[in-house]
Amino acid sequence: MNLGKGERIKKKATLEELAALVGGQVEGDRLLEITGIASLEEAGEGEISFLAELKQWPRLEKTKASAAIVPLSVPSFPKPLIRTSNPYLAYAKVQTFFTHQPYSPRGIDSRAYIGQNVRIGRDVSIYPFVYVGDGSQIGDRVILHPGVYLGESTQVGEETILYPYVVVMERCLIGRRVIIHAGTVIGSDGFGFAPEGDRYVKIPQVGIVQVGDDVEIGANCAVDRAAMGKTWIKRGVKTDNLIQIGHNVTIGEDTVIVAQVGIAGSTEVGNRVALGGQVGVIGHIKIGDGAMVGAQSGVAQDVAPGQVISGTPAFSHREWLRTQAVMPKLPEMKRALAALEKRIKALEEKTSPK
Amino acid sequence: MNLGKGERIKKKATLEELAALVGGQVEGDRLLEITGIASLEEAGEGEISFLAELKQWPRLEKTKASAAIVPLSVPSFPKPLIRTSNPYLAYAKVQTFFTHQPYSPRGIDSRAYIGQNVRIGRDVSIYPFVYVGDGSQIGDRVILHPGVYLGESTQVGEETILYPYVVVMERCLIGRRVIIHAGTVIGSDGFGFAPEGDRYVKIPQVGIVQVGDDVEIGANCAVDRAAMGKTWIKRGVKTDNLIQIGHNVTIGEDTVIVAQVGIAGSTEVGNRVALGGQVGVIGHIKIGDGAMVGAQSGVAQDVAPGQVISGTPAFSHREWLRTQAVMPKLPEMKRALAALEKRIKALEEKTSPK
Amino acid sequence: MNLGKGERIKKKATLEELAALVGGQVEGDRLLEITGIASLEEAGEGEISFLAELKQWPRLEKTKASAAIVPLSVPSFPKPLIRTSNPYLAYAKVQTFFTHQPYSPRGIDSRAYIGQNVRIGRDVSIYPFVYVGDGSQIGDRVILHPGVYLGESTQVGEETILYPYVVVMERCLIGRRVIIHAGTVIGSDGFGFAPEGDRYVKIPQVGIVQVGDDVEIGANCAVDRAAMGKTWIKRGVKTDNLIQIGHNVTIGEDTVIVAQVGIAGSTEVGNRVALGGQVGVIGHIKIGDGAMVGAQSGVAQDVAPGQVISGTPAFSHREWLRTQAVMPKLPEMKRALAALEKRIKALEEKTSPK
Repeated sequence: MNLGKGERIKKKATLEELAALVGGQVEGDRLLEITGIASLEEAGEGEISFLAELKQWPRLEKTKASAAIVPLSVPSFPKPLIRTSNPYLAYAKVQTFFTHQPYSPRGIDSRAYIGQNVRIGRDVSIYPFVYVGDGSQIGDRVILHPGVYLGESTQVGEETILYPYVVVMERCLIGRRVIIHAGTVIGSDGFGFAPEGDRYVKIPQVGIVQVGDDVEIGANCAVDRAAMGKTWIKRGVKTDNLIQIGHNVTIGEDTVIVAQVGIAGSTEVGNRVALGGQVGVIGHIKIGDGAMVGAQSGVAQDVAPGQVISGTPAFSHREWLRTQAVMPKLPEMKRALAALEKRIKALEEKTSPK
Repeated sequence: MNLGKGERIKKKATLEELAALVGGQVEGDRLLEITGIASLEEAGEGEISFLAELKQWPRLEKTKASAAIVPLSVPSFPKPLIRTSNPYLAYAKVQTFFTHQPYSPRGIDSRAYIGQNVRIGRDVSIYPFVYVGDGSQIGDRVILHPGVYLGESTQVGEETILYPYVVVMERCLIGRRVIIHAGTVIGSDGFGFAPEGDRYVKIPQVGIVQVGDDVEIGANCAVDRAAMGKTWIKRGVKTDNLIQIGHNVTIGEDTVIVAQVGIAGSTEVGNRVALGGQVGVIGHIKIGDGAMVGAQSGVAQDVAPGQVISGTPAFSHREWLRTQAVMPKLPEMKRALAALEKRIKALEEKTSPK
Repeated sequence: MNLGKGERIKKKATLEELAALVGGQVEGDRLLEITGIASLEEAGEGEISFLAELKQWPRLEKTKASAAIVPLSVPSFPKPLIRTSNPYLAYAKVQTFFTHQPYSPRGIDSRAYIGQNVRIGRDVSIYPFVYVGDGSQIGDRVILHPGVYLGESTQVGEETILYPYVVVMERCLIGRRVIIHAGTVIGSDGFGFAPEGDRYVKIPQVGIVQVGDDVEIGANCAVDRAAMGKTWIKRGVKTDNLIQIGHNVTIGEDTVIVAQVGIAGSTEVGNRVALGGQVGVIGHIKIGDGAMVGAQSGVAQDVAPGQVISGTPAFSHREWLRTQAVMPKLPEMKRALAALEKRIKALEEKTSPK
């Protein structure tokens, strides 16, 4: 096994080829050769850059990039352009083109521990200090970085990448093309205790966690296994770092969860939901498809599909904005109220029969 | 050492035996043989289920379970029952009965690193890639999962389970029957710096962390060692994932701490306190026995025993609920105030001598 | 390689020597021999203690310490004293003097994995289960505790200490005299996805993280690598545990970040800023030098240098305090408003022509 990095393969493409990749229109030299993509400030000779929004126009004027990906609405410009309706998506695709390296499997390092009755697919990379528990199944082209822990009878689907010290506890199921960043724990015990007098009796957490295909989970997160049944992170979910998912939670497809969010047990989050950073969600509620929750909000009851909410407890985001604008005026309102009361009293005295 | 899982031992019990286990009363076939426990929806032939609260009654009517654990108040039912005053506790006990496997020690794996002058009790399980620092003491039947790190002169009490990549820094003391989930760090340096001009001088953190018996700590938490003396998590404390405990904090017995809570240095939390998810507690205060703090609250001063508080900064939970109900009406109140002011002005003009 | 702890070297110093160390004035026996420092309650014969603030005076009167470090303003006292303008800083320095042990390098343990083309300085300590990726550079006297992961082409400066399971992903740069506590991840992918219809396309995160000299980062934190360019934690920054730093964030020199703070992408935090526990900061804003943000606040827009703010969204801390004082009175204000309205209506009817 060769753990060496090997030479990075340098790539290049014509403007025409990149335009085809992103579904855009070339303006200018179609055969211009591009060797990389960088920000407007950092791009140089031979590189392409991108303008995500029209208002960044002044940054485009100063760029040293040889070409740029721009929105459809950008006026003509003295450099070659690729026009597209979604420059940010085009950037993602071009960046992927330039940075993607062909995968060369490392095999199974002799310093990894592989248990009994483990099934390992083809072309895997299992690095030193990986622990694979008995009865586990690892798909083709899976990469287990140093120190990954797979408990007994776990399954990891094809082309999944687990970064250093990712822990997958026993019987949990990880889908295909999943990415889990370093230090994240999948399948720790749910937080379940039954009070008996002043003390607590632990409720065995015998369920699992299932992670769907194409999920990406950030670093140092914790996803608890179900008490019974499963905690389920469905296809396409993307989470940032340091998030907490309680037992028996379901997260719907293509939902996005920003850093430090916590979701309590048995809550169902719908598809294409967006939860802002540091949001807290109580247990046993439903958040409808397409709902959005503002950063730091506390969600304490069901959320209808498509609703946009903020605050603790959260309500309509629009109303919350109005409320927050009034907040700094509260002390003044209190004084105004007292002053009005005095004036009314004066009026009452004046108009009373003496 | 055999790291194989071995066959799970299948268990069964009569309804009568389970009733004795949970202190309940059988109604129906006392000798009915039960092979497992599952939720009302998932239980099948031969399994028992449970009804935690009377309002879940419609779920009971549809269950395919062969028997059910129910509250005392449930009316008669066509299936065998165990009546008990605390069905949730009964579930915990029956689930423990069915899932508990006899412990078979794995011994000390040759891929673990064991330092000098280490005392290791009987029947331990020390997995690959565990690191045990010099002078440590490990009690009987302790389980150190892969990658556990014990610093120099640490102590781990009997029957404690440390999950993968738990870190216990030097000289820290872990009690008996403690469970610490994956990735948690015990004994990192407290956050202490003395300003010297614009810069900071590190204050050596020379104290320890002491974790009492029967404590359970979640995944990816951080518990800092004391500056001097000890950070102390007392007997029976249960914490969820991703919590932060500052240096010199004391957490009282049987206190429950939900995910992502942070407690700043030198604060004393009493016995049987409950801190909701994402709560923040400032340093150098006291939270009295039995107090409860609502999720996401910020506790900025002492809390009397038994108090129930919410908000940032936190005050009476009941008053906070009333306050929050008014919040969305703030903009309306501001407009109303302005309108009243106008009406008063009009009245004042009307009643003034011209 | 000897991983044994060895005997701690016992230190002692005269009061005169300690006074010189901290820049203080001795009062009493200049040649009194001191063997350690402890809190006023715990210090005993031969030890020195310290009084950080004058109001702790009653604790000083009861101490069994043989001497004390005190503020300049303390009245005369029957025990030997060191007077200084900053007793807390003096404590830091004296504690460092008594606890600092001469460093004895452990060398490179045979159970560590060292990749190809790695450059390792003199007198390092590389413990078992450390993984050093190809092309990495490790400075003199660096300590890599068990399980540290260094990705390909990383650099770690002189005298830096990485605690167990610290992960530094490929190409990231760690400065000199840096301390990173256990479980922290440096250089995980930034959270960047471009929507394409209902799904998300990952934006490759090809930048790095650069950590300046004399930085200290707490346990179980996550610092994301830049999308392009770098995430930059500048010289002297000190962070507590469980913090999240998004991609392309810059943290200025000597800034202090308390536990569980989250900072979203591309935000620039100035020098000597202080962020309280659990603060959230949105992306793409600037926080000026010397600004302070109260615990649990949400920062949603630029903050001027030196500003002190609190709340979600945050505004002037002073105004926030006044606002929060009014909060519990909101329900009463609402009732008062309704009552005034009635009284005005009555007045209006009374003064109207019938």
